[in-house]
Amino acid sequence: MDKKTLIQNIKVRRSFLCVGLDSDLDKLPPHLDSSPNGVLQFNKEIIDATAQYCVAYKLNTAFYEALGMYGWDVLAKTIEYIPKTHFIIADAKRGDIGNTSTMYAKAFFQSLNADAVTVAPYMGEDSVKPFLAFKDKWTILLALTSNEGSKDFQYIGKDQDIPLYKKVILKSLEWGTDENLMFVLGATRVEQLKEVRSLVPHHFFLIPGVGAQGGSLKEVVTRTITKDIGILVNSSREIIYASNGIDFAERAGMKAKEISLSMAQLMDQLH
Amino acid sequence: MDKKTLIQNIKVRRSFLCVGLDSDLDKLPPHLDSSPNGVLQFNKEIIDATAQYCVAYKLNTAFYEALGMYGWDVLAKTIEYIPKTHFIIADAKRGDIGNTSTMYAKAFFQSLNADAVTVAPYMGEDSVKPFLAFKDKWTILLALTSNEGSKDFQYIGKDQDIPLYKKVILKSLEWGTDENLMFVLGATRVEQLKEVRSLVPHHFFLIPGVGAQGGSLKEVVTRTITKDIGILVNSSREIIYASNGIDFAERAGMKAKEISLSMAQLMDQLH
Repeated sequence: MDKKTLIQNIKVRRSFLCVGLDSDLDKLPPHLDSSPNGVLQFNKEIIDATAQYCVAYKLNTAFYEALGMYGWDVLAKTIEYIPKTHFIIADAKRGDIGNTSTMYAKAFFQSLNADAVTVAPYMGEDSVKPFLAFKDKWTILLALTSNEGSKDFQYIGKDQDIPLYKKVILKSLEWGTDENLMFVLGATRVEQLKEVRSLVPHHFFLIPGVGAQGGSLKEVVTRTITKDIGILVNSSREIIYASNGIDFAERAGMKAKEISLSMAQLMDQLH
Repeated sequence: MDKKTLIQNIKVRRSFLCVGLDSDLDKLPPHLDSSPNGVLQFNKEIIDATAQYCVAYKLNTAFYEALGMYGWDVLAKTIEYIPKTHFIIADAKRGDIGNTSTMYAKAFFQSLNADAVTVAPYMGEDSVKPFLAFKDKWTILLALTSNEGSKDFQYIGKDQDIPLYKKVILKSLEWGTDENLMFVLGATRVEQLKEVRSLVPHHFFLIPGVGAQGGSLKEVVTRTITKDIGILVNSSREIIYASNGIDFAERAGMKAKEISLSMAQLMDQLH
């Protein structure tokens, strides 16, 4: 999906919500089959119930890999099931030497047909560039993550120099453009969001950490939204586990609707 | 596999060679079936031909993921096929927030039953620790990688402060021990190897980059070997693609034998 289409979808649907399908076999509602097939059914019902309120789905590959080859099949079948109107993110956090990154890019962009893949920057240019070589596909580079451990290394260089997460962003501008590169910025890093936005005014941000992880939607959006919106805010557990009963999909839809209404309001207020 | 057994295997087999199964469907010898099954057959023949000359196998997950669910099956079946006497590394370079890292750990340590997984440090403590919680399993943390792009971020902080790759090593000593933590150190980073060895005298290093990537075995071993050996040196392409003919396995075995003989010599000279 190209940038123009993504922006158009956000504006038409009045939502920049990304629903995170971190679908855990051990957390399925008890009426569903406790098997990879049960996960697929869970995903399909969640997608049916939430598609009108979101513009993207993010599949956390770990939850599928933990199920072995059938998990990988569920990953593929879930991606196939997502409507073509929605942006699909493989949240895989890959990154390796050049020829290996090319293999990962093929796995996610060609074999699975995702629109985007999250990539870890530690190994530098030749680990990231192979992902950027695919037309109309996106690399979402980890910059400043939402977890506690982000403080261990991502701020290194802070006093003497600019911190690592900013170096990652600045360096990556030599590799890609705002048409094929986004950044992961945690919603829990509110103090940094505004500064990063001024650094890269035209790039999309993928923002996890709203909801279950503690970030506030309004605080995050105020600091990052642009006239082209420029953000995808992810919510996983809050939506997909809104209920553990037979009404899980309905309640997921209600939660997604509630978040998307807040988003629509913020879009009206801020742009 | 615990550390004592690994050291014993190295001393008995007089080899610290790790064979990298970066098995690419597009590079299979033409007489093999060009399918995931062909890759499995390729791996089995390589394993049969090289097992007596090596102590470990490293499976680069990208090459299997690129084949979709059947690739994942080949990954699982290859690991099953490797003799229990050999240390098995899933070269996956994973790392995510806590609950996701736990899922990856389950995928590689439980579902696939690998002994070790490579982990990217960018997201810090809670992204690494879940891997360390599994008994007799190993986390191999990326420190200083062999690729050109390693220069982009891994040396950050060099002048004012200690570089990122050293911070990663030092910080990780708070999370794990030399019984469950190893480091990836590229063979192309000869200048740094000795210094890192003095920093962590008892940890195992996984050293890729010898051979096709340009590192010299002798230079690397001289700087890193300890009385418990303490290193696994990986070779992938040089061994598995030693020949593209019907003799591919035989030639792979010959190449592995040649490298292991050099290793035995170095072990004799240096300890």
